[in-house]
Order: sequence, then structure tokens, then C-alpha cells
Amino acid sequence: MKDKIDTFAKFGDAGHGGITRYSLSAEAHLARDEFARRMTAIGASIETDDMANMYATVSGTDPSLKRIVMASHADSVKNGGNYDGILGVMGAMEVLETVVAEKIPHRHPLTAMIWTNEEGSLYPPAMMSSGVITGKFDKATVLASKSIVDPTKTFGEALAASKYKGDEKCRLSAAKYKTMFELHIEQGPILEAAKKDIGVVTCVLGMANYRVKTYGQADHAGTTPMSYRKDALLASAHALLYLHDKLDALDHALVYTTGEIKCHPCVHTVIPDEVDFSIDVRHEKPEILRKAVEIITNLPSEFAKCRTETKLAWARDTVYFDRELVSFVKQSADELGIPNQYINSGAGHDAQFASYLMPTTMIFVPSKDGHSHCEIERTSYEQCTTGASVMLNAVLKADAKRD
Amino acid sequence: MKDKIDTFAKFGDAGHGGITRYSLSAEAHLARDEFARRMTAIGASIETDDMANMYATVSGTDPSLKRIVMASHADSVKNGGNYDGILGVMGAMEVLETVVAEKIPHRHPLTAMIWTNEEGSLYPPAMMSSGVITGKFDKATVLASKSIVDPTKTFGEALAASKYKGDEKCRLSAAKYKTMFELHIEQGPILEAAKKDIGVVTCVLGMANYRVKTYGQADHAGTTPMSYRKDALLASAHALLYLHDKLDALDHALVYTTGEIKCHPCVHTVIPDEVDFSIDVRHEKPEILRKAVEIITNLPSEFAKCRTETKLAWARDTVYFDRELVSFVKQSADELGIPNQYINSGAGHDAQFASYLMPTTMIFVPSKDGHSHCEIERTSYEQCTTGASVMLNAVLKADAKRD
Repeated sequence: MKDKIDTFAKFGDAGHGGITRYSLSAEAHLARDEFARRMTAIGASIETDDMANMYATVSGTDPSLKRIVMASHADSVKNGGNYDGILGVMGAMEVLETVVAEKIPHRHPLTAMIWTNEEGSLYPPAMMSSGVITGKFDKATVLASKSIVDPTKTFGEALAASKYKGDEKCRLSAAKYKTMFELHIEQGPILEAAKKDIGVVTCVLGMANYRVKTYGQADHAGTTPMSYRKDALLASAHALLYLHDKLDALDHALVYTTGEIKCHPCVHTVIPDEVDFSIDVRHEKPEILRKAVEIITNLPSEFAKCRTETKLAWARDTVYFDRELVSFVKQSADELGIPNQYINSGAGHDAQFASYLMPTTMIFVPSKDGHSHCEIERTSYEQCTTGASVMLNAVLKADAKRD
Repeated sequence: MKDKIDTFAKFGDAGHGGITRYSLSAEAHLARDEFARRMTAIGASIETDDMANMYATVSGTDPSLKRIVMASHADSVKNGGNYDGILGVMGAMEVLETVVAEKIPHRHPLTAMIWTNEEGSLYPPAMMSSGVITGKFDKATVLASKSIVDPTKTFGEALAASKYKGDEKCRLSAAKYKTMFELHIEQGPILEAAKKDIGVVTCVLGMANYRVKTYGQADHAGTTPMSYRKDALLASAHALLYLHDKLDALDHALVYTTGEIKCHPCVHTVIPDEVDFSIDVRHEKPEILRKAVEIITNLPSEFAKCRTETKLAWARDTVYFDRELVSFVKQSADELGIPNQYINSGAGHDAQFASYLMPTTMIFVPSKDGHSHCEIERTSYEQCTTGASVMLNAVLKADAKRD
């Protein structure tokens, strides 16, 4: 595992402890080459589908059975870390290598998989390929997705140029695959604080994403007396603190974020006339999420003489993972004597879309100080290996189960 | 005056009531051509200097005397109105035309002038040419100023390509010019609210411009419990409201603006780690401005667990206009029976830099609803004409004064 972590950390190494490895970039292709080389070396057969998702499969003893797949992604955000995504791919490789090296008997074919463009960092949206395969996203639309760096380039062009673009018939499907596991870092501080090495993931949190807008009047900073002003940024500051006050009182497990703010015209000598911020709320329970949405949509219609407006950007329901698979993960961790706890995922993952196709679940390992999507993202070699061990044992439990 | 206003409104007409007329653009050259045509028609001689400032001069009866100049600018902000700047040029033309047509005796040569690039909308900074001529700005630096639309283009290139680039020896100077007047719209609501047609401007307000920064920790919106967060935008909202509370209590004539905000990384799924907003405070009296600055620089060092920082961007002292010229404007308005009042300028103008070269003052006319730098900017034909009448009379008083 240490060798894998150190090796894959080179592909896209940004020179200060992390990586920038956009999907289908030269760096991402190096990671895929390494994946193919190592998997071929243990006798796995490599396939790729029309979204360039990669599958490395070792046979089981019963050729009539569907495959069990362990999947995650090899791409990163800009200046991301060495664990988000790639850990699940390395863990899947580790499981296959161990199964082959130790000749561990298994009935089902076992597959290690790389999802293309989970982050959507260069070509939005995130979870692009699982979205396409499950019909959540329109393929033609995502092929036309423009590079955020160079809008003359599309995802479709990058895909066509990739040597890993394959055949649609190789796609992950319920016909060919039985279950999916995804090992991932927690991306939060909960496991570390609780001194647990494994998070048994039960669900991906439901969420709602709103835009809050305030409308003022653009006037000159030097010539407009204070009493005449309609300052949309002042109004947004009031709205933001109002939402914090109300949402803080709702439920301690609610998480909500005002991450984005746009100000117009955003000139230091002009009173802002339009300010717009995002608010993202997440909670497992629909009734709490509904109450949070009520607070947002019932925002006072005016702050500081400026009209307010709230608009739903998008929302999703909580996605519960397969109860039996969750229990396999829990039992595996318990049997191995690994401190563990149930946890939910506040972040989205390909596993969440995959769960619409087949029984799916996830396994979390701790994130040092809870950081992710940044270069200081860290999980110890031992914790990564523990994650792979729990995945191996859970996969074997799934393998043992009669279809 | 009506003909001038309607004619100049065509040069850069954006199709919805206002103009976009960046300095030295094709549209701005049309306005300059019109200025030259009309001034040549009344026998004025045209000169231009090395910054393409334009001067149209009619002789006086005593060729040994310095010139009296009436100046403003012909360029606008993006989607600006038909009055800011160009009114002072049209008013100066109106004065010269009237003096010539009515054969009004005057001893000094009288000059109507166009300042180049007062707005700095395409090529920053604002008040570029008066800054260069008075030595406030370095000429080489402003020549290298890049277009905010196309950074491969510089102001120097636009200047070199302009047919109105002339000779440095034609510059406005204390050796050749006696006094300067600038007629301008108020850009605020004070005159209209007080039902006055003329503002006798006494000073340009002193100001201080600060950046306030808050530092948090970028973490994932879905996976970071609220109690672990350091949200720089939440901290900035607190800081902004704190500043409003404190500054509101200071002095009713203080104006302050938080017009610009930058958020990093500004992604709806990431807790902001750096937020930075501008605060611009203006007041005539140094002691009030000092107290405002104390409030800003004594901002609590932490809000919402985020460190704060304040940094001076720039500041200027209040610039008082020449007392005698101010009294000429006041007397002229009074003698003409025009409702008027003393007023200060919260905005910067070329007159403020010119006042370092020679006695200078300004005359304001009302802005409908106080709006400026926008297409709905309005001043009635009558009010514009009144402004020109007051300027004519004040110029004649300056002309009558023995040197």
C-alpha cells in the first residue's frame, strides 16, 4: 500500500505535497497506465467503456456469476491531495493483488475500477461518468462540457483523444455486476476525533442548494448619503447572519455552508446593487432538511431596504446504502478488531449513483484534521491498509452469499 | 445646450439611454471631433498635449494675460450616462460660444478643455491625465496601463494611435493658465432633495480606503461538522456589520462603502478560507476621518474563530478649493437668483489634482434621484444651462480680477 501511495502521488505532483490530476489529463493517463500495468501483472483482464471508465477483473471459480466491483476515481481537484479517490482505486488493487497472491478462494469475478472524472474539476459536472451510466446526466450534454480553463475545449474532445476510451457494452451494469464497494477518505474530522479507524457508511446525506439574492441600488460611494443607500452587500451580510442564527438552532447534525458569494458591480467606489450567495444544507433526515429549507425560503423579504429572493439550485434525497452490504462492512471491521463506527457521507460519491444500479456501499478511513480537497490531505499508510483489509473481508462476505 | 446634450449623447450610444465611451475609443474621438468642429467655428484655436488633453482657446483683449480654463472630461464608465464629465465640456463650449456670439468683453484668453481618461474605465487609474500633469502619477507607468478588456493592449498604444496626441509644451500649467473651473453633475441626491439648482463646491472629501481580510479554513461543505468550522465568509459578514454599527454612530455626514468583496475559493461546496472586502470612508474633517480609521484599524482580531486583518489601500486628505473662486461661484448664483447651497464633493475629479497647479473650483448641478455612473443619470436641459450660466458669470468675475 505504501508503494502504491508513493507511486501514484507522483502522477500530477504539484511540487508541494499534493497533486493536480484532472481526469483524462496526461498525469491521469500515467496513473491509468500504472493501474493497467499492475493489474495485468496479476493476470487481470482490462476493459474500458465509452466514458473511459477502466475495469480490471480477475476470474472467480464460478464463471456464471456476476462480478463484484470495487471502484473509485483517479482524478483530483486543483491542488488536491494524494488520497481522495485514488485511495479507493489503490485499495481495490490491493484487494485483487492479495486475493491472487494469497490464492484466496472466491466464486465471483472481482473487479477493480476507475471512474472517469468524478471531481469534474476541469470539465463539470462532478460524478460525470456514474451520472451518465445511471442516466442521471445526458451523455451528449456532458460531452459538450467546456473546460473551465480553456472554453474552446470540450470533455468530448478529451475523451475521444484518450487511449482509454472503449466500448459502451463494457459499462458497469446490473446485468454484469452484483455489488459495488467504494473505499474513500472521510473528508471530515469525525473518525479521527472519535479515534476510529473505519467508518461504516450508511448513507449519503440529502441536500438542498439555494441561491439567496439581495437587490439594492448602485450609487456612488462618495456622493450618496448613508440614509439614501440601498446596499445589497449589507443586506446579504444581514441575510447570511440571519440564516446562521436560525439554522444553528435547528439540529446539531445539520451542516450548511455559504461558500460562494457574487457581488455586482464589485467596485470599491460603488454601492453594490446585486449580491448573490449560495447556501447548501445537508442532513440525513428529510424532516430536518425540510425545516432547513423552510427557514431559507421564509427569509424576510427585505434587509436594509433591499429586496431578497431565494431560489432552489438543486436538491437530492438521502441515498441509503444497501443494509446487507453495510452489515458486511461492520462485521468485517469488528472481526478484525478495528475500532469503527457508523457514519454518513456529507459529500457526494460515484457510489451514490451506482446504488441506483445495484447494491452498493462505502467504507471510510480517517482524514487527518478532517481536511480534504487540499494538499495537506493525509491518511496514514496503516489506516489506508486497514481500509483495504476491511474491504477485502466485506467483499469475501458478499462473495460467500448465495445469489 | 439641448442641441449639445442630444448630439454628444449619440457618441457611444449604447441603445438604452446611456453611453459607453471609453477614453480614446472611436466613440470618444467622434466627441472630440465634434468639440473641435464647434470650437473652430467660433474662432477658437485648438491645441493638444502629450496626454491628448484638448484645449480650445478664444483670445482676450490683453494678450499678456494667462488663460482661464473650464475643463472636464468626455469619457464615460461602461454603460454610463450623458452628463458625467461631458456636461463640463459642453458647459465650457456654451460659455465660449456665448462670449463670442454676445461679444462679451474679457481680458484673459478663455479655454474650454477636455481631460483625457478621467474615468480610467478601460485603462486605470481614474484621473489619469491630471495625475500625470501634476506629477501625482508617473507617466511611464500609466502608458503601460493595460486594458481591462484586452490585457495585450496598453494605454500608451491607444495614445500613440490617437490623432489628438500633441505636444507636452501645450500642457495645462501655472505659467500659462490662471485658474480652472469645472462644471459637473453632483452624482448624489443632496441638491435635488434641497430643491437647489446649483451646488457651490467647497472641497473634495478626504478619504481612506482599507481592505479587511478574514482567514478561515477551507473544508468540505458536507463532511465538516459546524463546530469544527472556520468560515471566513461568516467572519466577514460579522466584521462588515460590526463596522456598520460603529461607523453609523460616528457622524451623520460620514459616508462609507463596502463595495467589493472577494471570496476564496468561492465554491458552493467549500467553506471559504479567505474573504477580503473593501471599505472606503470619506469625510471633510480630518478628525472624523481619523476616528473612522481608528474604528477600522481597531477591528476585533477575530470573528467566528477567524483571524482578521486590516490594511490601508490608499488615502487622501480633503482638498479645499480656492476660497475666492468659491465666492465668485456663490455670488454668481445669488446674483442670477438661482437657488444654491454650499456642498462638498464626495467623488474625485480632475479639478482636485488641478488645484495643486492653480486656483481651482467646481460647480455642481443636481442629479435626478442622485444616480450617476449609470444610464438613468439625468439632469434637465434647464439645470445644465443654469450651470453654464453660473460658470460664465464666475469666469467673468475671475477675468475682472486684477492679477
